[in-house]
Amino acid sequence: MKVGVVGAAGYAGEAIVKLLLGHPEVELAAVTSRTQMGQRLARVMPALRGSDRGLVFSASDPAALAASDIPLFFLALPHGAAAEFARVLVPAGKRVIDLSADFRIADLAAYEAYYGPHHAPELLPVARYVLPELTAPAWKTEAKLVAAPGCYPTSILVPLVPLLQAGIVTREHIVVNSLSGVSGAGRKVDEAYLYVERAESAKAYGLTKHRHLAEIEEQLALLTGTRTIIQFNPHLAPMRIGIATTITVPGVPGATIEQVYAAWGRVYGKSPFVQLLPTGETPDTAHVVGTNRVDMSAAYDPRTGNFILTSAEDNLIKGTAGQAIQIMNLWYGFPETMGLL
Amino acid sequence: MKVGVVGAAGYAGEAIVKLLLGHPEVELAAVTSRTQMGQRLARVMPALRGSDRGLVFSASDPAALAASDIPLFFLALPHGAAAEFARVLVPAGKRVIDLSADFRIADLAAYEAYYGPHHAPELLPVARYVLPELTAPAWKTEAKLVAAPGCYPTSILVPLVPLLQAGIVTREHIVVNSLSGVSGAGRKVDEAYLYVERAESAKAYGLTKHRHLAEIEEQLALLTGTRTIIQFNPHLAPMRIGIATTITVPGVPGATIEQVYAAWGRVYGKSPFVQLLPTGETPDTAHVVGTNRVDMSAAYDPRTGNFILTSAEDNLIKGTAGQAIQIMNLWYGFPETMGLL
Amino acid sequence: MKVGVVGAAGYAGEAIVKLLLGHPEVELAAVTSRTQMGQRLARVMPALRGSDRGLVFSASDPAALAASDIPLFFLALPHGAAAEFARVLVPAGKRVIDLSADFRIADLAAYEAYYGPHHAPELLPVARYVLPELTAPAWKTEAKLVAAPGCYPTSILVPLVPLLQAGIVTREHIVVNSLSGVSGAGRKVDEAYLYVERAESAKAYGLTKHRHLAEIEEQLALLTGTRTIIQFNPHLAPMRIGIATTITVPGVPGATIEQVYAAWGRVYGKSPFVQLLPTGETPDTAHVVGTNRVDMSAAYDPRTGNFILTSAEDNLIKGTAGQAIQIMNLWYGFPETMGLL
Amino acid sequence: MKVGVVGAAGYAGEAIVKLLLGHPEVELAAVTSRTQMGQRLARVMPALRGSDRGLVFSASDPAALAASDIPLFFLALPHGAAAEFARVLVPAGKRVIDLSADFRIADLAAYEAYYGPHHAPELLPVARYVLPELTAPAWKTEAKLVAAPGCYPTSILVPLVPLLQAGIVTREHIVVNSLSGVSGAGRKVDEAYLYVERAESAKAYGLTKHRHLAEIEEQLALLTGTRTIIQFNPHLAPMRIGIATTITVPGVPGATIEQVYAAWGRVYGKSPFVQLLPTGETPDTAHVVGTNRVDMSAAYDPRTGNFILTSAEDNLIKGTAGQAIQIMNLWYGFPETMGLL
Repeated sequence: MKVGVVGAAGYAGEAIVKLLLGHPEVELAAVTSRTQMGQRLARVMPALRGSDRGLVFSASDPAALAASDIPLFFLALPHGAAAEFARVLVPAGKRVIDLSADFRIADLAAYEAYYGPHHAPELLPVARYVLPELTAPAWKTEAKLVAAPGCYPTSILVPLVPLLQAGIVTREHIVVNSLSGVSGAGRKVDEAYLYVERAESAKAYGLTKHRHLAEIEEQLALLTGTRTIIQFNPHLAPMRIGIATTITVPGVPGATIEQVYAAWGRVYGKSPFVQLLPTGETPDTAHVVGTNRVDMSAAYDPRTGNFILTSAEDNLIKGTAGQAIQIMNLWYGFPETMGLL
Repeated sequence: MKVGVVGAAGYAGEAIVKLLLGHPEVELAAVTSRTQMGQRLARVMPALRGSDRGLVFSASDPAALAASDIPLFFLALPHGAAAEFARVLVPAGKRVIDLSADFRIADLAAYEAYYGPHHAPELLPVARYVLPELTAPAWKTEAKLVAAPGCYPTSILVPLVPLLQAGIVTREHIVVNSLSGVSGAGRKVDEAYLYVERAESAKAYGLTKHRHLAEIEEQLALLTGTRTIIQFNPHLAPMRIGIATTITVPGVPGATIEQVYAAWGRVYGKSPFVQLLPTGETPDTAHVVGTNRVDMSAAYDPRTGNFILTSAEDNLIKGTAGQAIQIMNLWYGFPETMGLL
Repeated sequence: MKVGVVGAAGYAGEAIVKLLLGHPEVELAAVTSRTQMGQRLARVMPALRGSDRGLVFSASDPAALAASDIPLFFLALPHGAAAEFARVLVPAGKRVIDLSADFRIADLAAYEAYYGPHHAPELLPVARYVLPELTAPAWKTEAKLVAAPGCYPTSILVPLVPLLQAGIVTREHIVVNSLSGVSGAGRKVDEAYLYVERAESAKAYGLTKHRHLAEIEEQLALLTGTRTIIQFNPHLAPMRIGIATTITVPGVPGATIEQVYAAWGRVYGKSPFVQLLPTGETPDTAHVVGTNRVDMSAAYDPRTGNFILTSAEDNLIKGTAGQAIQIMNLWYGFPETMGLL
Repeated sequence: MKVGVVGAAGYAGEAIVKLLLGHPEVELAAVTSRTQMGQRLARVMPALRGSDRGLVFSASDPAALAASDIPLFFLALPHGAAAEFARVLVPAGKRVIDLSADFRIADLAAYEAYYGPHHAPELLPVARYVLPELTAPAWKTEAKLVAAPGCYPTSILVPLVPLLQAGIVTREHIVVNSLSGVSGAGRKVDEAYLYVERAESAKAYGLTKHRHLAEIEEQLALLTGTRTIIQFNPHLAPMRIGIATTITVPGVPGATIEQVYAAWGRVYGKSPFVQLLPTGETPDTAHVVGTNRVDMSAAYDPRTGNFILTSAEDNLIKGTAGQAIQIMNLWYGFPETMGLL
């Protein structure tokens, strides 16, 4: 099956190109970039020297892509730009998996509060947000356009949602702290992301107003049936890749750690990409880098009555590109782990 | 004034030796180490080549130190071992500033629950826990032995205590997440602390039962008058030095960010080592490394009613050795910043 | 085809296990470890959670392995220990690919000068050193035991040998400087390899007497027909993985950069794992990590008459485990890149 | 004594400002920056919070500085810009210590070959290149303008020059490999210096044509009396600070390692900032960071007849700002180590 990647010159684009080149059922038929048009892939992504199959970046032209024989496109574009492509590709009958925020939020007002005017609101009804482990499978037939979840939201929703669904934890006083590697900011050429500034440096940022909040809280409401407000404190840590998330959430009276693991087991028992670590052992970003996994664990603190949920993922794989491949596999009926294990 | 450092071969010991060598009012008259006895300082601490003044590690012999003409000792020993020295030095009339946990907890039962049997409980009445910015000044005359605070507790108590004292925040649902550099574990030769294991790795550890909890909660009770339980989630981040702490604490109804800064201003307005950053700007460990500062900031989240307090410090300076020097300066009437700015 | 890995608990063992689990033509039938016997693989290698196929470490018992139906073993053992296994496995008709130094040096005296007594000198006649891009193909039928090259030697021999063979460079005044990531030292629990000691630290080590010298110089003699002495200066750099090698070698009078690339092109034109970068562009370890490639480049300095050859590789893949897979592929007639691209 | 720093917003400027703030004999009377004019120092250099003495960046106006009562200026400007200031300040009777390349090269043609047109060639006769440990002391009275050496040249000249002067080593086949931390590139906002690009990455760069070559070779000629060509291979290593240099140089027949140390001892026996490590021990950048030292060592390889000289320094202190302070101390008769130990 032919696939295309639009806007492939960033870190997420590079990650999805690498995965697609190794996927046995797809042919990477188009890779576009506004800035790198005409360049060999390996010229821009030196990690692909010898394995880029001679591919050359083509122009990012929505009409030309719509006229091609490629049935599926991945959009690895900034928000705003993704909608501009989707509004041409979807009406042309193409399936689209979008890695940007443009279709992650069903509530238009919430989107626009964080991101500004939406460029393709007419597509929201046919767009589906798909976190494969949690989204009900009807999306496979309903969606014309899939929004792949953000990296922080994946690391938060996977551990938290089953416990809210099971009624084991409260909906108040939920505090989420996440540490992200620097690639989370994308290939942004800014003094703040220079090696000398970030090495040996840890800091909180984006407190009280990170854009991923809209996505997380909408999904919490949709997946658990009740509006739930969280405190989300993101941090930068001096590493290239990885997100470690720590969620502090009060248990309902009488809730036990066994109930937590039982609720997780019910939802993720057959998930190839969620690994449950025993209480007392905590996930480590270094162990998931390069994989499509979420490793997670829980501890109960009898002093406070809180559960502490910890998760780790590769922000560019399970947090972005790998999850998009997983979505494609499910959408097209390939084995879920194909190209990902 | 002559001073001695006992157990100087670890990271904390090295930090205090460096600071004492640059302090204009003291003479480093003894540096002891059980394992490095007879070695030149610079041999064990190559950063001191050319500036170790020819000093040689002497034996760690409590009786010999008690018989010396040195009036003040810094103990840079593991817990347990520190008490063994203190019980000889204090009765001999020496002043002691202890960097270990042995005298940080006035409640013997609480100490023993976390650390096992105490080796010098008879000294607890003459020991004082001194966090210079918060501890009432009576310690200067009462103490024979001063416990310098732990690194995590300093980063937590400094931002939190004034707000509890001012009644601006609640005592419930306080969640503290801290990121520590690897030197926080000491010079421990263990697979977990190898470069290859820790580089590019972030993870939570010691959840629900970190030893610093006893110290933090006892100080919260003593300094604010009321027992206060917190959730403390420590993490390792891939950096050598630094602690970044993020505290989520619900405000009391009507509390404002201006009140937070006002409360901080009242307590720290004249403190040379506490820097208040405006809301919206967050402290960065890289900016405090090598200094005795705590940089801190606060944000208010109207969606949750929480205040987010962030702090950053050098765990080996303000978190350990620098704070001990600051205590010495205050105890002996030297300018508070001497040898530290 | 069944294969076994002996001594899999180190970094090299982990790397080869990962590659074998993804290789379509082999079944990983035995993974042994003296220290981890009875443990699930993923318990010891958390990166394999969910993908270790339920494998458990078995005992490292040469006799039991010799009696098994496994035809091929990879030895990921310290030198000395590898020979002890080989001397049992080879007479039992097993093929062996050894990652240690035990059979890299044909000259027994040279081996013993660097490594001490050899434990299986009787196998030297049936052992072959195989650097796939350079070793003549007769090894495929002659060998009963293959020694996979060391990580430094691979990074040096690949760029240097074709130029010596072509007579473009001199055999004198060859200076090799290499930078290695810390994993090059193995999973050695030693103060020198702690995160705090190695982060932000660069230094030369092992000057004038590194063990890889014997291997490098023997291969230079065998592959180019003439004894050639080099200066080899290894360094540690603060990274987990990767070797960057820079070779300064005088050109013979009249030699040109075009001749260098032509010589390389003749030898490596069809090699899937050697990538030639144009002069002026230099290889970067970050671009080869996770691959079985050697990226390399050359520059000519008219001021000195020297060529500067630079190479980069992943010390655990092309430098160890990937090269061993490549050897297996060639030995058994699988496509050379199988499981490696 | 009042001093000024011109162009203080880069890494070198920040380093010199920090050192001057701690120097007991000087008052930092002006700190200028074209881009940061009007800002508090601590706003631009957060490490100086609480210790910037309220200083504010002033405009970079040569005429105003020339009219001030400040007798000494440090120029921390790009090459070219430095000359523009020097040509105003020096005729006004100010002393200038320039950290740029503008006055490091006495040979105008050599300068212009690497850097383009010189903006103040009329000052070359009154400019002196001062590497304090090697430059003859006449500069103290002759110079109106001092060029502080570059970071790479310092790390190369200090170990090499005494051996050439003593005739122990040859002038041919000298190969210098250096590893630099990323701050060596300055605060340059370029994709190549992003955290994600440089972390876990080592590579050679600038081969055969690095600008420091002109400076190194001119000094080798001036200090040793004979033109000497070297091979200089610089590399980037994933660390913020530090230069590790490894020099391979053939010994003259009969030369011994004892002669090397004796030659070094004669030149550096009383130098507070050069530390000689015994052969077999190698300097480590981590041990010199934050100091004004060069640590160095030598090994002899009887197989090749080469000496291997290794040095380590902090590129921003001994390689730039600390050396400038050392020059000021010597020029004004302050103790050489004042403000530096």
